[in-house]
Amino acid sequence: MTDRNLDFDRAFELVRKECAGIIERAPGLIRGYTSYLTAAQGKMMRAAATLACSMDENGMIPMDAVIFASAVETLHLATLIHDDIMDDADVRRGLVTLQKKSGKRTAVICGDYLLAAAMRQLSRATENDRYKSFDFSRYVERVALGELRQNINNKNYKLDVFRYLAIIDGKTAALFEGAYHAGALAGDESEERIAMLRKLGRYTGIIFQLTDDCIDIEVSENKAGKPVQADFENGVITMPFIHAVKQDPSLAQDAQEGKLSKTQVFEAIIKSGGVSFTHNMAGSYYDKCLGIMDKLSLSGKKKEILGGLLERAYKGLN
Amino acid sequence: MTDRNLDFDRAFELVRKECAGIIERAPGLIRGYTSYLTAAQGKMMRAAATLACSMDENGMIPMDAVIFASAVETLHLATLIHDDIMDDADVRRGLVTLQKKSGKRTAVICGDYLLAAAMRQLSRATENDRYKSFDFSRYVERVALGELRQNINNKNYKLDVFRYLAIIDGKTAALFEGAYHAGALAGDESEERIAMLRKLGRYTGIIFQLTDDCIDIEVSENKAGKPVQADFENGVITMPFIHAVKQDPSLAQDAQEGKLSKTQVFEAIIKSGGVSFTHNMAGSYYDKCLGIMDKLSLSGKKKEILGGLLERAYKGLN
Repeated sequence: MTDRNLDFDRAFELVRKECAGIIERAPGLIRGYTSYLTAAQGKMMRAAATLACSMDENGMIPMDAVIFASAVETLHLATLIHDDIMDDADVRRGLVTLQKKSGKRTAVICGDYLLAAAMRQLSRATENDRYKSFDFSRYVERVALGELRQNINNKNYKLDVFRYLAIIDGKTAALFEGAYHAGALAGDESEERIAMLRKLGRYTGIIFQLTDDCIDIEVSENKAGKPVQADFENGVITMPFIHAVKQDPSLAQDAQEGKLSKTQVFEAIIKSGGVSFTHNMAGSYYDKCLGIMDKLSLSGKKKEILGGLLERAYKGLN
Repeated sequence: MTDRNLDFDRAFELVRKECAGIIERAPGLIRGYTSYLTAAQGKMMRAAATLACSMDENGMIPMDAVIFASAVETLHLATLIHDDIMDDADVRRGLVTLQKKSGKRTAVICGDYLLAAAMRQLSRATENDRYKSFDFSRYVERVALGELRQNINNKNYKLDVFRYLAIIDGKTAALFEGAYHAGALAGDESEERIAMLRKLGRYTGIIFQLTDDCIDIEVSENKAGKPVQADFENGVITMPFIHAVKQDPSLAQDAQEGKLSKTQVFEAIIKSGGVSFTHNMAGSYYDKCLGIMDKLSLSGKKKEILGGLLERAYKGLN
């Protein structure tokens, strides 16, 4: 029997506390570097997903889902720290990145520490037997693989749609899927429903990334909390650009030769309809998600939150 | 009941296969970067320790110890990959490092992947209930902390003995302790004996590092498989140098100002007796280890291997 005695708001608050606690309980040295990150906890979409997936028909949540959700968010933070090293990123969630603030060496180690701390948090979930099938490290492996694919394709201006989807399936969708999976397990769902919830998570992650790609092109520096067209500047090729190259292959050559200014890239993408193409692709995953949610016959708070996350992923409401 | 049906040689061979298998089973992309590392599996001292700690009085080993040992070695490899990023190291175990060969970005990710793979391997150990107390991620956290301490003290020519011991307690001794701990658990030892075996592992790790510090000063490039005085060149301060500064504080100032050549550092250390001081400190831990082994009343193959590891750590027989 799963003892669910937390409502969503209480559970979400506890996740915040657990996440802060993981950093606060870290040895002083690690804390010194990472404590400023608690100020930037972000939207915690993954945590919300884990909690919602674990809900019963009355919207009540078991403590294990809180533990899982905080592990997922801590792991997410660890991957962001390593991600920022690779992207040479200066700003994240409106704060200076750890790699910029304290150097790449420190960021490598603090990321490792948080990765281990996330694993430790996972192991705190009490009803261990039910979770034997939950191989969270598989998701970490998939994230690493996605990052590696992205890295290999840095400045590969001829990257195609299929390969790009494989990249984001790892770098973004895997952790979403893991978050939904963990929640479904904590909520003691059936095998079949677990599989559906995982798919919902994976697709929501893909939508989230595609929308993020559009935001990187469209939105001004201030709103996105990071510089505009940061992706292109860092050699990260995303869907809108891939579409633009498909329409006009000479773009790839020009980009390769460093002939394209930010403005030219922006204009070429807009002209090709790359943003709408990407948005439409997100739309087709969005429709699939609606279908899955329908099959799951979700209701009440569970439907509200999972539906809300899907909307946020699709519309980029930050 | 623990089913022990492997002798040491068979178990050790299986660990090699498991370690190679973890890399071989990795997705092609990861494998492409890491497969050359299987050629450099190293001495696998930690694996030998795990196996020996799990032995019964007939020297027989359970399969879980093989799983644990391969997880420990894979984790060790992951930490070396991240370590090499931070040290800008070109060569390790006689091979070009991953960070040199494929770049720091790739090395960050492949390290993460192997860290996750090590955790996954750990979870494969079958008799899970007995291992609930085994919080392996704590050891990963300690390693990270040790690395961070080392990093902070890079080029801190005034580093003292106490702080240095805290560094190596993390960066080297933690994984040794974890290896002994895992073996003792797989072997179903009593709480009291587990505590003693962990301490034996921790001290053996400290001895190993202190001896390694001496080797870095004393041995020529060819023998150590890495450049001479690589530590000092990388700003890594070790025990022999700390002792030399204690004898002649002006050294710290000269080093700070970049006035010291490799030869001068070497001569100052030798003159101060820094190598013998370090060796003697290793000796006092060595004596403690003999005492622990005595209390444990080890015999047969178990005594032979754990004693042999201690000798290797102390004498630096590679």
